[in-house]
Amino acid sequence: MKAYQELGREELLSLKAQLEKEFEEEKAKGLKLDMSRGKPSVSQLDMAMDFMDTLDSNSYMKTEDGVDVRNYGIVDGIPEARKLLGDIMGVSADHVIVCGNGSLAIMYDTVSRSVTHGVGGCTPWCRLDKVKFLCPVPGYDRHFAITEHFGIEMINVPMSPQGPDMDMVEKLVAEDESIKGMWCVPKYSNPQGYTYSSETVKRLANLKPAAKDFRIYWDNAYAMHHLYEDRQDELPEILSLCEQAGNPDLVYEFCSTSKIIFAGAGLGAVASSKANLDEIRKSLSIMTIGYDKINQLRHVRYFKDIDGIARHMKKHAVQMRSKFQAVLEVLDRELSGTGIGEWTNPNGGYFISFESMEGCAKAIVAKCKEAGVTLTGAGATYPYGKDPKDSNIRIAPTFPSQEEMELAADIFVLCVKLVSVEKLLEKCCPEPIYVSCSGTVGRAV
Amino acid sequence: MKAYQELGREELLSLKAQLEKEFEEEKAKGLKLDMSRGKPSVSQLDMAMDFMDTLDSNSYMKTEDGVDVRNYGIVDGIPEARKLLGDIMGVSADHVIVCGNGSLAIMYDTVSRSVTHGVGGCTPWCRLDKVKFLCPVPGYDRHFAITEHFGIEMINVPMSPQGPDMDMVEKLVAEDESIKGMWCVPKYSNPQGYTYSSETVKRLANLKPAAKDFRIYWDNAYAMHHLYEDRQDELPEILSLCEQAGNPDLVYEFCSTSKIIFAGAGLGAVASSKANLDEIRKSLSIMTIGYDKINQLRHVRYFKDIDGIARHMKKHAVQMRSKFQAVLEVLDRELSGTGIGEWTNPNGGYFISFESMEGCAKAIVAKCKEAGVTLTGAGATYPYGKDPKDSNIRIAPTFPSQEEMELAADIFVLCVKLVSVEKLLEKCCPEPIYVSCSGTVGRAV
Repeated sequence: MKAYQELGREELLSLKAQLEKEFEEEKAKGLKLDMSRGKPSVSQLDMAMDFMDTLDSNSYMKTEDGVDVRNYGIVDGIPEARKLLGDIMGVSADHVIVCGNGSLAIMYDTVSRSVTHGVGGCTPWCRLDKVKFLCPVPGYDRHFAITEHFGIEMINVPMSPQGPDMDMVEKLVAEDESIKGMWCVPKYSNPQGYTYSSETVKRLANLKPAAKDFRIYWDNAYAMHHLYEDRQDELPEILSLCEQAGNPDLVYEFCSTSKIIFAGAGLGAVASSKANLDEIRKSLSIMTIGYDKINQLRHVRYFKDIDGIARHMKKHAVQMRSKFQAVLEVLDRELSGTGIGEWTNPNGGYFISFESMEGCAKAIVAKCKEAGVTLTGAGATYPYGKDPKDSNIRIAPTFPSQEEMELAADIFVLCVKLVSVEKLLEKCCPEPIYVSCSGTVGRAV
Repeated sequence: MKAYQELGREELLSLKAQLEKEFEEEKAKGLKLDMSRGKPSVSQLDMAMDFMDTLDSNSYMKTEDGVDVRNYGIVDGIPEARKLLGDIMGVSADHVIVCGNGSLAIMYDTVSRSVTHGVGGCTPWCRLDKVKFLCPVPGYDRHFAITEHFGIEMINVPMSPQGPDMDMVEKLVAEDESIKGMWCVPKYSNPQGYTYSSETVKRLANLKPAAKDFRIYWDNAYAMHHLYEDRQDELPEILSLCEQAGNPDLVYEFCSTSKIIFAGAGLGAVASSKANLDEIRKSLSIMTIGYDKINQLRHVRYFKDIDGIARHMKKHAVQMRSKFQAVLEVLDRELSGTGIGEWTNPNGGYFISFESMEGCAKAIVAKCKEAGVTLTGAGATYPYGKDPKDSNIRIAPTFPSQEEMELAADIFVLCVKLVSVEKLLEKCCPEPIYVSCSGTVGRAV
């Protein structure tokens, strides 16, 4: 396919006319498709309905060590659930606290506690003039929302397929004591689906931050979320690398089963060093008498062990991969060689990341909306919702059905083309939009 | 029975010898009984096991308005759960947010948010030199632990059977802008089982606090926890009284089903004005994508409505009341007229509050421990664990079986007697513990 950039004004105009016609046709269909959030589909949820039969009125309601899960207690989570969630992260149960129904709240609590009580005996962040976080971009909007909520300044760090720019990370954390944290989705990253390389993980574990209370927020959200049998990313286990590096307290790791079982009715967990967990426990024991141990037991009885989770996730993969492939096929077919977009082809996770031409993302998302396709808001993948190039769009192929996904992808590429053509027309042969005082008509600068 | 205070030294010494003998006999039994926490008993939990059958793999997993509870969303909680929890508090669903598995975490979050973000546009508490809370005493140790955790100064306010000393409350909040909150367990209070009178509730709703961001933390934990059919306390609904008083934002109300269904696997909720809820929602939507809606649906399908809860709580009452009565019978039989203790006889809730002679509570709890009976730590019912008179002991009769409860009560009164006799001996005819320089032996001053 010819790159759009090589087309002349007339070609672009004629293409525009044709695309506009197609767009009106699509719009007339009155579709309502949602590719905005990384939500599991109804059929993914349906395939886990036997989870609801795991415990019933005849179930033995005690843990392996004899604790009644129906009563108060055990702030840490029941031992067998700590083991199961630990296995997802590749760490032993004693490094794990199992919490409520998701991991986001644990991250929020962790930041909140750092603000009010400080980290490792250091000054609470609320008493500091400035606190900063490093944010690999594009990244997860809900991470950025937490740090923004607490008035923490966010610094963009570019992502590559190997992970964040480590030269930049090393330099910044070594120089700036006000940098207290870094958001990471190290495996099948949100939104690009990149997995940090061994080299990257090692360099992270060996960071020498100026701030003693600097912590990496290691959101291992997609540890089990492979899309393919034969193409699977491996992520080194970072807690042990930190320990080897003499940095045992550097990382808080998070995971959850929200995207393994039911979204919002899963388990969240945090893994870290003993010192960090003891600090967390101190607050937790004030905050709660314990999380929902019945749901913890339900998980353990249903999955039995990490292999049970892996088997379940293979079933997810079958469904998800065909949707990912449907999107990728449309992108390949319609946009390869056009020069108006690039996209990732991840081995796992929940997203495809799309890079449009500069200055087009917002317009593409708006166009899609007009035709009934809801995408994640442009800019959402950047701190403060500000994508400096206005080019990144997160595609979440999981929630719609396969059919809907294909329809949505068609509309998406149509909008990409249309907006790109408009952008190119504007650039190469702009409409007169500036009239000088002397009456001459020219291009706005 | 003769008051112990009227006994002479010889009588006391002989009583002491006899009680010590009894104590050694009890101790030799090697019992292990726990009356320390307000935990439901195994049989209370057993009677709710059909709750586990409420949802299974054939269940319709959508809310009344068609939302799939297995997927993300609805930070507020599903509408029918908001209604159910609202009915517990006597407020409409739109005044309610249903949260996680208990109410303590909501209270913690509420204080934490006030510290980091402030209340109603006022200065965040972390930027203030001093923040104080009023604490009706004796009260709930976990409330006091939250405020202590955040460095909030706690001021004791004496309780009477009508509630906290309102003259004191009105005066303090009107004068002192640094008083930002007040803990209340208004119905079947922890530990006395008192219910605030209509007069008290009205005066609270009409408070004129100096601090715009003063809020009452209304922990309506025992709204449904009547012990008797014919003796039930009524608590006026405070949110509407606040509205009538022109104080719509004065109260955060909390409740949970932890002591209705399974402890730790219930639902917690907060009720408040629209303005307060909007402020809460702002943080909540950053903290979570939503709480466990499956458990919310399970509650609604199981109980159906508030009458379902009331019916269930009647079954609880049958069990609980016989344990309360067992304790009360022993107290009446063994301590009436002795002048060494007073206790409450509540119509509901989870506790009996016992007042020993001054300076005896710690020793009684220690004695009980020695004989295998664990009580809530003496002082726990006061801020900072400091009971100024060292006289209050919280008795939690619910967790042990009826038999265990009777055994534990016997040991408790024995320890009360023994410690009281020792105290009286010490007072009226102290052993010589002071030898002057000139060699004269006398009483220590």
